Amino acid sequence: MPEHTVKAFDEDITHLRGLIAEMGGLSELAIQESLDAMVRGDETLAAEVVKRDRKIDELHTEVDKLAVRVIALRAPMADDLREVVAALKIAGVVERIGDYSKNIAKRVGKIEGRDRFEPLTLLPAMGDLAAEMVHDVLSAYAARDPLLAKEVIAADDKVDAFYNSIFRNVVSYMVENPATISSAAQLLFVARNLERIGDHATNVAEMVHFAATGTYPPDEDD
Amino acid sequence: MPEHTVKAFDEDITHLRGLIAEMGGLSELAIQESLDAMVRGDETLAAEVVKRDRKIDELHTEVDKLAVRVIALRAPMADDLREVVAALKIAGVVERIGDYSKNIAKRVGKIEGRDRFEPLTLLPAMGDLAAEMVHDVLSAYAARDPLLAKEVIAADDKVDAFYNSIFRNVVSYMVENPATISSAAQLLFVARNLERIGDHATNVAEMVHFAATGTYPPDEDD
Repeated sequence: MPEHTVKAFDEDITHLRGLIAEMGGLSELAIQESLDAMVRGDETLAAEVVKRDRKIDELHTEVDKLAVRVIALRAPMADDLREVVAALKIAGVVERIGDYSKNIAKRVGKIEGRDRFEPLTLLPAMGDLAAEMVHDVLSAYAARDPLLAKEVIAADDKVDAFYNSIFRNVVSYMVENPATISSAAQLLFVARNLERIGDHATNVAEMVHFAATGTYPPDEDD
Repeated sequence: MPEHTVKAFDEDITHLRGLIAEMGGLSELAIQESLDAMVRGDETLAAEVVKRDRKIDELHTEVDKLAVRVIALRAPMADDLREVVAALKIAGVVERIGDYSKNIAKRVGKIEGRDRFEPLTLLPAMGDLAAEMVHDVLSAYAARDPLLAKEVIAADDKVDAFYNSIFRNVVSYMVENPATISSAAQLLFVARNLERIGDHATNVAEMVHFAATGTYPPDEDD
């Protein structure tokens, strides 16, 4: 690319990365706030999380449009094209991470007898772990750091272990408290959403690793 | 683009669309076979569904690589670029639809006392509906048919209604049969996976509508 195009391309990439960082910050916040809302039964906060997810969707659309414009105008090759395509894909996954938090927030109103509802106490630690994965994978993306990306991939095992233990806990609670089964089922979905957030952070980590090294770590199951 | 490049581009697009049609056929089959396996408790078939999902993942990688190569070599503009980007996105969603079926197949071994397990009988009709949405949305893509795409978007309401009624049914069954709660919880996830397949078929329908008309139908919630 000629000098001026290279400069313009670098500015576009910086802009793309900034938009994705903003999406990441919002989706990390959404994980924590959706769980605060869930634990406290704060439907106002839950509604804010649902509303704010639109902002993540708008940023995703902005990334798509800019990436396509960059490809069309600058016709990047090789590594530069790989970088733009990685931005497209990563923005798509971060948008889905936001959707999972929105989904958690939408379940807040469906929990009854919250004050006496033990299983609620199991979720925040899992949520912190998932939010930390999202935070770290976006730092790895910003810093083009394949080692931090690998740490995120490793952390997913902890999230999966959390999920399995919460699943067993909630099911035993259901058996002992049949009256709460409908609310407890909501928590199974919340735990599952957090587990999926961990999977998606892992997917981003694999893309970051690919963008930085040109190789994918071995594929994980869903 | 010069004559020969236009011809090469059209061949590439045809190839891309063929790969996506193949992914669609496999993921439609995976929905039906994962539910057959679930209802019959056929763990061999379930294992085949899980194994065959790798083929969908490989086709997805092939679409990604070809799309990036097309963009790099042919530098398509405007509608042509929009078509390549649509192929990238649609392949990504179809791959996720395959993952949901794989996830259903992986739960087959977790259902106990299958012979007396009523809730199993609720799922196949919902699965047929989800598989039909996937089938129709890929026909809409192949035919660039925005009207069929809109029908798929409309059908998603039926899948959501199915999900809500199955959720209520399974929860009441849990209340009446606490011994089966762990298996019944698996069915809640299966129903949820089918509901998500409907959402993703809807997303593809929106992309097909966009590719055909340049406008998105209004956004659906997750």
